[in-house]
Amino acid sequence: MASCIRRLSIAVSGLGRIGARHANHFLHHTPRAELTAVFSPDPREITWAKENLEPWGVTIYTDYDNMLKHIGLEAVCIATVTTVHAEQSIKAIKSGKHVLCEKPLSTDLSLCQKVLDSARAHPHLKVMCGFSRRFDSSYLAAYQSTLAGCIGRPTILRSQTCDKYDPSVAFVQYAQFSGGIFVDCNIHDIDLALWFLSAGTPDKGLPKLRTVTAVGVTALEPALAKYGDVDNGIGIVEFYDGQIAYFYSSRMNAPGQHDMTEIIGTSGKLSVNAHPTSGLLESHLANGIHRDIPQNFFERYEHAFVEEAKQFTDAVLDNKPVPIDLESSIQAVYIGTILQESLRSEKKISFDRKGNRVKEWNGSAPGIAESQIRAEL
Amino acid sequence: MASCIRRLSIAVSGLGRIGARHANHFLHHTPRAELTAVFSPDPREITWAKENLEPWGVTIYTDYDNMLKHIGLEAVCIATVTTVHAEQSIKAIKSGKHVLCEKPLSTDLSLCQKVLDSARAHPHLKVMCGFSRRFDSSYLAAYQSTLAGCIGRPTILRSQTCDKYDPSVAFVQYAQFSGGIFVDCNIHDIDLALWFLSAGTPDKGLPKLRTVTAVGVTALEPALAKYGDVDNGIGIVEFYDGQIAYFYSSRMNAPGQHDMTEIIGTSGKLSVNAHPTSGLLESHLANGIHRDIPQNFFERYEHAFVEEAKQFTDAVLDNKPVPIDLESSIQAVYIGTILQESLRSEKKISFDRKGNRVKEWNGSAPGIAESQIRAEL
Amino acid sequence: MASCIRRLSIAVSGLGRIGARHANHFLHHTPRAELTAVFSPDPREITWAKENLEPWGVTIYTDYDNMLKHIGLEAVCIATVTTVHAEQSIKAIKSGKHVLCEKPLSTDLSLCQKVLDSARAHPHLKVMCGFSRRFDSSYLAAYQSTLAGCIGRPTILRSQTCDKYDPSVAFVQYAQFSGGIFVDCNIHDIDLALWFLSAGTPDKGLPKLRTVTAVGVTALEPALAKYGDVDNGIGIVEFYDGQIAYFYSSRMNAPGQHDMTEIIGTSGKLSVNAHPTSGLLESHLANGIHRDIPQNFFERYEHAFVEEAKQFTDAVLDNKPVPIDLESSIQAVYIGTILQESLRSEKKISFDRKGNRVKEWNGSAPGIAESQIRAEL
Amino acid sequence: MASCIRRLSIAVSGLGRIGARHANHFLHHTPRAELTAVFSPDPREITWAKENLEPWGVTIYTDYDNMLKHIGLEAVCIATVTTVHAEQSIKAIKSGKHVLCEKPLSTDLSLCQKVLDSARAHPHLKVMCGFSRRFDSSYLAAYQSTLAGCIGRPTILRSQTCDKYDPSVAFVQYAQFSGGIFVDCNIHDIDLALWFLSAGTPDKGLPKLRTVTAVGVTALEPALAKYGDVDNGIGIVEFYDGQIAYFYSSRMNAPGQHDMTEIIGTSGKLSVNAHPTSGLLESHLANGIHRDIPQNFFERYEHAFVEEAKQFTDAVLDNKPVPIDLESSIQAVYIGTILQESLRSEKKISFDRKGNRVKEWNGSAPGIAESQIRAEL
Repeated sequence: MASCIRRLSIAVSGLGRIGARHANHFLHHTPRAELTAVFSPDPREITWAKENLEPWGVTIYTDYDNMLKHIGLEAVCIATVTTVHAEQSIKAIKSGKHVLCEKPLSTDLSLCQKVLDSARAHPHLKVMCGFSRRFDSSYLAAYQSTLAGCIGRPTILRSQTCDKYDPSVAFVQYAQFSGGIFVDCNIHDIDLALWFLSAGTPDKGLPKLRTVTAVGVTALEPALAKYGDVDNGIGIVEFYDGQIAYFYSSRMNAPGQHDMTEIIGTSGKLSVNAHPTSGLLESHLANGIHRDIPQNFFERYEHAFVEEAKQFTDAVLDNKPVPIDLESSIQAVYIGTILQESLRSEKKISFDRKGNRVKEWNGSAPGIAESQIRAEL
Repeated sequence: MASCIRRLSIAVSGLGRIGARHANHFLHHTPRAELTAVFSPDPREITWAKENLEPWGVTIYTDYDNMLKHIGLEAVCIATVTTVHAEQSIKAIKSGKHVLCEKPLSTDLSLCQKVLDSARAHPHLKVMCGFSRRFDSSYLAAYQSTLAGCIGRPTILRSQTCDKYDPSVAFVQYAQFSGGIFVDCNIHDIDLALWFLSAGTPDKGLPKLRTVTAVGVTALEPALAKYGDVDNGIGIVEFYDGQIAYFYSSRMNAPGQHDMTEIIGTSGKLSVNAHPTSGLLESHLANGIHRDIPQNFFERYEHAFVEEAKQFTDAVLDNKPVPIDLESSIQAVYIGTILQESLRSEKKISFDRKGNRVKEWNGSAPGIAESQIRAEL
Repeated sequence: MASCIRRLSIAVSGLGRIGARHANHFLHHTPRAELTAVFSPDPREITWAKENLEPWGVTIYTDYDNMLKHIGLEAVCIATVTTVHAEQSIKAIKSGKHVLCEKPLSTDLSLCQKVLDSARAHPHLKVMCGFSRRFDSSYLAAYQSTLAGCIGRPTILRSQTCDKYDPSVAFVQYAQFSGGIFVDCNIHDIDLALWFLSAGTPDKGLPKLRTVTAVGVTALEPALAKYGDVDNGIGIVEFYDGQIAYFYSSRMNAPGQHDMTEIIGTSGKLSVNAHPTSGLLESHLANGIHRDIPQNFFERYEHAFVEEAKQFTDAVLDNKPVPIDLESSIQAVYIGTILQESLRSEKKISFDRKGNRVKEWNGSAPGIAESQIRAEL
Repeated sequence: MASCIRRLSIAVSGLGRIGARHANHFLHHTPRAELTAVFSPDPREITWAKENLEPWGVTIYTDYDNMLKHIGLEAVCIATVTTVHAEQSIKAIKSGKHVLCEKPLSTDLSLCQKVLDSARAHPHLKVMCGFSRRFDSSYLAAYQSTLAGCIGRPTILRSQTCDKYDPSVAFVQYAQFSGGIFVDCNIHDIDLALWFLSAGTPDKGLPKLRTVTAVGVTALEPALAKYGDVDNGIGIVEFYDGQIAYFYSSRMNAPGQHDMTEIIGTSGKLSVNAHPTSGLLESHLANGIHRDIPQNFFERYEHAFVEEAKQFTDAVLDNKPVPIDLESSIQAVYIGTILQESLRSEKKISFDRKGNRVKEWNGSAPGIAESQIRAEL
């Protein structure tokens, strides 16, 4: 007896570390979706796809545009390198596909804006940026508590993203196009700040940016400095109406991946992952008690990624709003770039209530394109 | 492009709380398996199946024997009430199907033995009893540590199964056929004891039963007494060659499901779930710090059930041994029934090295069938 | 200006590991007490006392009877080897001194009884057995919660005492006079059981003993067997009116001292030390997260010992009842000896409601003296 | 027999919340010290002293200068209101007394400098500012680990001081003279930063200040704004040579006192109090698992205060350096005042390697006295 279920035909673009995961999730763990096509320009990724995806009936493309023409294709999950996220998103939208794009849309705000313009020009299409933590059960529970008023007004948010140090990873080279540590790592924390603090703004909209300050050090990788980057960064973002977020990111956390978040309200605090662990096992050995923590973001967020795929699919099939607003995702990139700018300029950067930068004494005005973007958002 | 993957055609028998989960897992989360048929005699379960399974191409049967004749069916997952587990398993085996049966095979040892006889008569079929904890990542990590010698020789095992008290559950009535608290709840703990302690027996085989003692109280449900049952039970099982397991089970754990296990070796201890939590969220509120724990076994073991389905499927398709030995599963039932007998008789029950009961002063010898079963195992 | 505070003149008998601690506490951390004398027959201990106590004005005696004659002495803290606890207690009582005696009074019940007789004959004297855990802040908080009804009726108590394995300790030799692991280690757990479960007995008195079962293994020290002892013991004690305590003791806990207790009531559970740690520090290193635990009972209970000294002193000076009832302390020893007997005889031992042993099939009646003691208590 | 121990004759000035504690510690828990005198101008405090101190032979003074003339007095512990710390310290030093002064010496840097000048003019006297956390066992263990190189080079320090919100405390009025939240609360965190980061500076000296940024909000007490203060503050302090400390302070932590510190090095992290708790008790109740945390700094640091008294006494009697360097304590105040200034001015404040402020665009140079102090330190 054949299935009569309506399933979303989706393709995954890019089959690197995270793309392969997305492909696997849409293929095997998202019942209402059907992975029908994938794209990769990389021979090794294609070899992997031939072995792991093709036997399940997935068509492999080495040309992104051709993939978009796959018969019946309805949606694309974009998981290529960041530099082509925006272009691929726009192409997909223009060819009438729903889009789930890995974060960030781009490290270039004007490109982000173009994706937003495309999405607005195609309001029947769902376009979402994949911030996986929003689908993690612990963060979801924290958000429900926040909405329920358990902590009063959310006022301060502290959040960190700390990766295990891996000397074999060429993150110095990677720093050239990652956008820097605040865009690459803290983008998740910024997104969480926008999400949680919105619950406490006067109009429940995005909190309004007021000042940005960032500092950092190159503790293990001095060569990062030539790209204006660091391996440990700390940033403070003030919002209007009395809210503050502050962030820490590190590429040298010894035991593994340790991100954590505190949402501090006027009558309580929610703490996510203050006591990190990779499971429920502890070893009581001669030199003390030990536990492991996740080694990377994927071990930490595996189930969140599956839930993300599911909720995006549901939003498309049931024509519901996607769970993450695109403007918010672009604002997260914007704040990340301003933090990175503050790191490099060693300046505190201020904004007026309309989101325009407050001109500074030395005449170094922000780029025009940028402030226009801000005014429009 | 069509899939060319070989998938296992499996049916699920019984669509109650746990059966519906199994159906869902084989349908949506076990890529190499295909749920093709289900059986239930229950109108509400059939209504559920029509809504949730039939649209995916699953055939619904109201007659178990007919389901076994489903074209191409290769395996059956049995999740009906315990009283028909054995009969359905034997029928499935005799019709050439691989069997994954929910624990326990039966609370009647002679029926367990018959399933074992059938399985032995069909050695090309995979027959496994589903003890889900063996597929939980924390228990698996503990087992790997044990095998790796991290704790020396495993010597003492403490394990508990504590369910949230639910006054609406008719567990007094349920006690009539559950086999009692040691068979119903601690069976998992007993299975864990056999698994972990085997790593420390002289021949790496099952530890040999030496004595069994159990006590209990009816703290919340005095009516349990008429079925020889309790709502809190404590048991000690001694094995030959210096190993002991001790167990606690309770039906009145206030915040939810809290099972935990300690595997104590000559040079270390592994502790699973000493610090129970349902996730990574803690709430810091005016009256202290709070966290939640899973509300039931399914919240606790959801991913383990998925892994169980996957490993069973792999074992069949790849013709590998199933991960849980059937004799071990029957031995777990046996120990559970002896614990229950010890609870009822208020006696400590002893066995010789061959597994025969040591005759007691009052002449109340164990049933003949039982000792024969033991001698054979 | 001189102090006009009335202070209790107290002596400490025995300056071994625990005696030296008591001396220090009464000398420096019990403001209302004044350590005026000490007794030790051991030259090394005397050397220590000359250096550490004598300069503070403490008189050292090498004869216990002479120490009792120290001018103005009002109380004695007895911390010698267990074998002389009872004799020294009785002598102190007879010479009109208040007594704080380290646990146990004796491993010989008839000697315990004699101390009790002496104490009853001198009702104006305070006589207390020092069970330090009762003065630990976590246990005290648990007890307050229990009394406040937070967990309903206390029904099940689980408690363990696990010492760090120290191959240099001659505990095989020590086993000859320690009374065995249930008397030596679990005595504290038994005392806690009597304390907490009393809050749930019909008359708030001591719970009435019903059955005792114990087992054990010699995992690291086979030579213990010749003294009828083990290095890992598990015992169950049933009480009348639906209460059970079960215990574990071990001499091979790898990382240090880990005792813990759960008090399980009809509507909640209190857990003391499920997440052991020696402080608030965790180390996040390349191979995971680590923490230490106390290395011995003194690290764990240091502040409890100080509190014990303080409360005993207050009870004497203010003529209040001592916080631990002497009958309860003797009952703890009694239960410990019965557990040890059950371990050795491999029998479950039963009692009627009056506390008399139920005669067993093989005619091995309990000793007469013992049952008389029980009847009287 | 009288004591022949040499004990330090010490007085306590101020018997408020913290002064009464100090008096108690020197009186009862510092064996080598003898509390001989106290000073308070407050009738309620004097009443308390008459009841609690006088009977132990302590002389009460209502005039500080008279107290300094107490026969045999050798040292003074100053625990009055902050505004007289410096003056009383200088008087004590000039009269030849050793000084343990509560933090901070003053919120006025020039007064701090005067104390330092006095101390330097009397090098035989011990002068120490009491930063109690340095005597906490968990912080001490972390410091030992840091010195032992367990975490590589200490690079980033995060530290927070969060007090329980107490609407009855007049902290708005208090804000007038507290120096502000960064001086009042985070001073401890700053001191910890100086302590731990010194272990990673090129010369093991104090880390050299580079930039200071602070922000804050008045979430619960808007009236704080009129004193340039906030109830939640966040600050970042950059040091030269690649070290950063960042701080959070709050006066609205719902469950109680929660300070915590992370010391992040190039190969590991030490975490103090990430999992706050007031003991080892957890309650498993119908609505989840609960634990309490300390209600105030004293519950958290009680034993650290005792240790501080002991180590100060030992330093004097044994003529050893005091454990906390006075320059470091003044630098902590200085950094706190700069953070507070940054909060108020909304500017990032920079320093050159010599510690002089980098002149800012608007011409608002730092006070001359201040930069001179910095140059000298």
